[in-house]
Amino acid sequence: MIKVSIVGASGYTGGDLLRILLLHPQVEIHQVTSERHAGKAVASVHPNLRKICKHKFVSAAELGPCDVLFLGLPHGHMMNRLAEFEALADTLIDLSADFRLRDNNAYETWYGKSHACPEKLDGFVYGIAELHREQLKNAKRISGAGCNATATILALHPLYQAGVVESAVVEVKAGSSQGGNAVSEGSHHPERSGAVRSYKPTAHRHLAEIQQELGTDRVHFSATSIEMVRGILATCHVFLNKDLEEKDIWKLYRAAYGNEPFIRIVKERSGIHRYPEPKILAGSNFCDIGFERDPHSNRLVVISALDNLMKGAAGQAVQAFNIARGFDETSGLEFPGLHP
Amino acid sequence: MIKVSIVGASGYTGGDLLRILLLHPQVEIHQVTSERHAGKAVASVHPNLRKICKHKFVSAAELGPCDVLFLGLPHGHMMNRLAEFEALADTLIDLSADFRLRDNNAYETWYGKSHACPEKLDGFVYGIAELHREQLKNAKRISGAGCNATATILALHPLYQAGVVESAVVEVKAGSSQGGNAVSEGSHHPERSGAVRSYKPTAHRHLAEIQQELGTDRVHFSATSIEMVRGILATCHVFLNKDLEEKDIWKLYRAAYGNEPFIRIVKERSGIHRYPEPKILAGSNFCDIGFERDPHSNRLVVISALDNLMKGAAGQAVQAFNIARGFDETSGLEFPGLHP
Amino acid sequence: MIKVSIVGASGYTGGDLLRILLLHPQVEIHQVTSERHAGKAVASVHPNLRKICKHKFVSAAELGPCDVLFLGLPHGHMMNRLAEFEALADTLIDLSADFRLRDNNAYETWYGKSHACPEKLDGFVYGIAELHREQLKNAKRISGAGCNATATILALHPLYQAGVVESAVVEVKAGSSQGGNAVSEGSHHPERSGAVRSYKPTAHRHLAEIQQELGTDRVHFSATSIEMVRGILATCHVFLNKDLEEKDIWKLYRAAYGNEPFIRIVKERSGIHRYPEPKILAGSNFCDIGFERDPHSNRLVVISALDNLMKGAAGQAVQAFNIARGFDETSGLEFPGLHP
Amino acid sequence: MIKVSIVGASGYTGGDLLRILLLHPQVEIHQVTSERHAGKAVASVHPNLRKICKHKFVSAAELGPCDVLFLGLPHGHMMNRLAEFEALADTLIDLSADFRLRDNNAYETWYGKSHACPEKLDGFVYGIAELHREQLKNAKRISGAGCNATATILALHPLYQAGVVESAVVEVKAGSSQGGNAVSEGSHHPERSGAVRSYKPTAHRHLAEIQQELGTDRVHFSATSIEMVRGILATCHVFLNKDLEEKDIWKLYRAAYGNEPFIRIVKERSGIHRYPEPKILAGSNFCDIGFERDPHSNRLVVISALDNLMKGAAGQAVQAFNIARGFDETSGLEFPGLHP
Repeated sequence: MIKVSIVGASGYTGGDLLRILLLHPQVEIHQVTSERHAGKAVASVHPNLRKICKHKFVSAAELGPCDVLFLGLPHGHMMNRLAEFEALADTLIDLSADFRLRDNNAYETWYGKSHACPEKLDGFVYGIAELHREQLKNAKRISGAGCNATATILALHPLYQAGVVESAVVEVKAGSSQGGNAVSEGSHHPERSGAVRSYKPTAHRHLAEIQQELGTDRVHFSATSIEMVRGILATCHVFLNKDLEEKDIWKLYRAAYGNEPFIRIVKERSGIHRYPEPKILAGSNFCDIGFERDPHSNRLVVISALDNLMKGAAGQAVQAFNIARGFDETSGLEFPGLHP
Repeated sequence: MIKVSIVGASGYTGGDLLRILLLHPQVEIHQVTSERHAGKAVASVHPNLRKICKHKFVSAAELGPCDVLFLGLPHGHMMNRLAEFEALADTLIDLSADFRLRDNNAYETWYGKSHACPEKLDGFVYGIAELHREQLKNAKRISGAGCNATATILALHPLYQAGVVESAVVEVKAGSSQGGNAVSEGSHHPERSGAVRSYKPTAHRHLAEIQQELGTDRVHFSATSIEMVRGILATCHVFLNKDLEEKDIWKLYRAAYGNEPFIRIVKERSGIHRYPEPKILAGSNFCDIGFERDPHSNRLVVISALDNLMKGAAGQAVQAFNIARGFDETSGLEFPGLHP
Repeated sequence: MIKVSIVGASGYTGGDLLRILLLHPQVEIHQVTSERHAGKAVASVHPNLRKICKHKFVSAAELGPCDVLFLGLPHGHMMNRLAEFEALADTLIDLSADFRLRDNNAYETWYGKSHACPEKLDGFVYGIAELHREQLKNAKRISGAGCNATATILALHPLYQAGVVESAVVEVKAGSSQGGNAVSEGSHHPERSGAVRSYKPTAHRHLAEIQQELGTDRVHFSATSIEMVRGILATCHVFLNKDLEEKDIWKLYRAAYGNEPFIRIVKERSGIHRYPEPKILAGSNFCDIGFERDPHSNRLVVISALDNLMKGAAGQAVQAFNIARGFDETSGLEFPGLHP
Repeated sequence: MIKVSIVGASGYTGGDLLRILLLHPQVEIHQVTSERHAGKAVASVHPNLRKICKHKFVSAAELGPCDVLFLGLPHGHMMNRLAEFEALADTLIDLSADFRLRDNNAYETWYGKSHACPEKLDGFVYGIAELHREQLKNAKRISGAGCNATATILALHPLYQAGVVESAVVEVKAGSSQGGNAVSEGSHHPERSGAVRSYKPTAHRHLAEIQQELGTDRVHFSATSIEMVRGILATCHVFLNKDLEEKDIWKLYRAAYGNEPFIRIVKERSGIHRYPEPKILAGSNFCDIGFERDPHSNRLVVISALDNLMKGAAGQAVQAFNIARGFDETSGLEFPGLHP
């Protein structure tokens, strides 16, 4: 049994990590931290874990050694406390944005400040298994990818790899859990419920990861908040540099993802679920991907869906952890999602 | 033209008052106050009033004289500042809970503190037009009724008047706007969205008004928050002390409300809208009331619906204002609500 | 491995049964039927099962022998085809309403027609494990309980057992999946979304089961549809015949449910999740129960929550199946639900 | 008073037309038709009009002469019955898609069949007042614009007029009322609620109107259904052919729309409502437009919001009617929308 602790476990990502790992057959949860809730029962914050999780939150100061430390701190904290956490565990899996970019300049450009330990950036594997599975094996430093970035990168990577993209415009529809558990005027239910709100029409930080992983800057990104708690739908308008038919596109995606346990190509001729939809993915680790060729232009519309807290955060991190430790890649991630 | 100012106009009730009164043919909006937003454009807080409302918020300290002052302050403020407001306007219409109860003891019991000016309680007319229309004519002090209380009282008053009730259990389904515009953990969208939450199973303060107006303490009350922003549905389980058929009930309600401009008896044999529903009432001043006799017991289920910010607050206040000033009772309140 | 087939697997309950049983360690899914979708992939109807379920629907006429047959047919079908199904499997677990009542007269009263095989009614165990665990062991005929009935019975049974109830009024808030997968004007999204609709103020059929299991007719029932897909919240207004304090109530519930794997007493002094809420139960088999004593009367408000397709249908059936076959009662039912 | 009849008044657009025109000071509603509901009270279909609309539906066969006929028939009907309706009224205002395109070939391409009376296409004015106000004056044949087309055209027209656009990708987020009142599996609440569904990634028919009115084919269009009943948010990714700053964009929009009664430029530096949002527009005739320049590329994101049944259909039609008849352009369209 691997002894795992979670730093920042009162947040939504931390809560989902805990939910997954409590039932993971090779994991024993050692400690979970929350500064604000230290001393309280975990279930008082995550009511779905009543009767399932007996742990109480501790302060990070009380952390003891463990095998693997998952970190769900707000952006900017991890890089300042890296040494502290390295002293506690052999393996660190960070879910913040601190170690996603390999290029220190890019970090400064997009995050507006200097990185606290730029020399460590290269030591972290970017945690999308579908792109970096080999590097993840035995990895000791893993950085989770951004949720919007994951949806976008998984949707577009096979096309960029094949060199068939002229440019792309990505528009993400996002749920409110993406904003975390801190209350704000924008998240006040009477204001947020039913809203369709452009929260980041331009200059979204996840674009830095997207451009890094796709190896291009000819990709544009906007995000719109909609009435949803969990979930992302990314609609990617891809302008092709050659005339591909749908069967050619099929081939590219099958080649890239045919053996992936958590990617499904969703493209049906009839029925109401013809394309990916985040609703049926809540709680699951799948990323569903579909596409449609525009008969009137060189546009290809690629659609991807995932649960931002799962394949976009906690689930993805556990998938990377499973690979790093040599476990079955799907351990703890079997929940298929609900219908309806 | 009547010169009207609104104190506490940045809240949801104040915003709705403003929306109505800006289009009221006999009203000129003089000043609107908000301590927090003083100096800012009203439309920056109430975005639906862009291009319609040119006013800026002022501090209450800047208020000048006017004809009628509507007050949408948090509970407990008005009673401490009554003299200040009486100096400004001939007529005060208060939307807080401060002057709803006529009995000082009841106020202390339900609000847990002494009233600041109990001798003034009798001077306010309880602002439900259907019960107190005569008193409202030329009234100078009017207190709006609680939103849940209004739904309950309008549903049950004809039955209590007729002396046919043994006891009643009222269960209100409530939207999030009832909690006002102050953010809290409970109103954070990821937590509140989709919630069905018992927020006040017992001891709700509106029960004091309900018992006062119905003249009984054999009425019980619970409230449950549901996924909705505006609206109340009150389901009233009435145990009858005599065997009434549905046509007898019809008679009682027709006699009570047949000429009321804002009450509709909704009870249809077929279709999907057989009973009152708050959804179609958003923005309207109607209270819809329906009922069904239980064939297996002495129970009668009475169902009422209204928009908590309209017939439950701002609309009701304007209706009372129209009566007090001798205007057409429906002036400014013509919006019928939307379908779908 | 137990060979299981599911009749009527294209419905929502059938889909959830399949989702659970596909991952159940002692079960092998043999056949799943749908007349309408025979020949089609299961995943074309239940998109959450893509890549997980390789089965195609067959017609019921194609069913072969199996060990256990779960039946999710519309009400009224099972009783007419009982012999057909008895020939196929040793054990039948019926999720329709056909075999819930033990009294043929009650069936006629509430369902408005004669039962097709009243002599068989006694042979079925009513499938609420918390009440009938002993009878379920080795049972060959099991009837699932109604979803609203389950929420109500579990909430009130300890009180009726203790003889402390004078009468009760139960009001259920229900999601749209309770109506099944057949489209109708009432379920059309523009009409149903945001609705708070009294769909059964009186004379709900589940009341027959409730009265049977609680052994009383002094219980009243109403149901209101709200904006929700999965979930039930039952608010039970209980009038006590003796003066019980909250600690007395605690004792009754602890005695009844202290060892139950799927019942949690939820009653917290602070926080936002003080009482049961169906939202965090979607996909889980828990029934959460809480309560509050009314300080102003002899009323006790008991609140219960569950997922109507899980503890109210498919999950409950699998729990009963596990007991009947001697498996771990929680097998296949470990998913804890999501937060947020 | 103008005598107005409405053909196809049981639909959502017809219902909104009726709601507006019943309170229009220069209009008298003469007849309203519905084949399916002929003989029934209008309020049984549009419950918001109880006590407001006393009319019963008649069959179209019973229509008598009137001054203005609004037509809300399904697409494809109007063109086959034009002569019939021309015989009844001097002025026809059609809300279907039949007379939106001026080019018969375009009609065949996008609607997949021949137009029944292509020689009449030129006789209709495309009913977006902001583009065709002069033509609408005294017009006798008016065609309403598509709802998505209206949102897109109003967002982009000033830019195309100024010749600053290289190409554009438009992505519309749409509510369920856009699909009309006919039930379907896709609109069944358990399936549609919470869905984020690509319903028309390519080849949406409204693109034909968009290209016609913007005078370009370098515009791409996709539509995604989200959890919403009324409303459209169009996010338009515009690639500029010259380097414009935000103040240049401001100038273009101010010049185009500065005097428009129903267009508001919404672009704020702070607060939660910085860009257009459809939620506050439900029931109003406004189209709100905002924008943001991408600092990293030649992209300009233009965002527009409207109520698809109002500015996107019924409200727009009444606005055009007001202009055609020389009434105040805002008559009947004063409702400002609700907050929250």
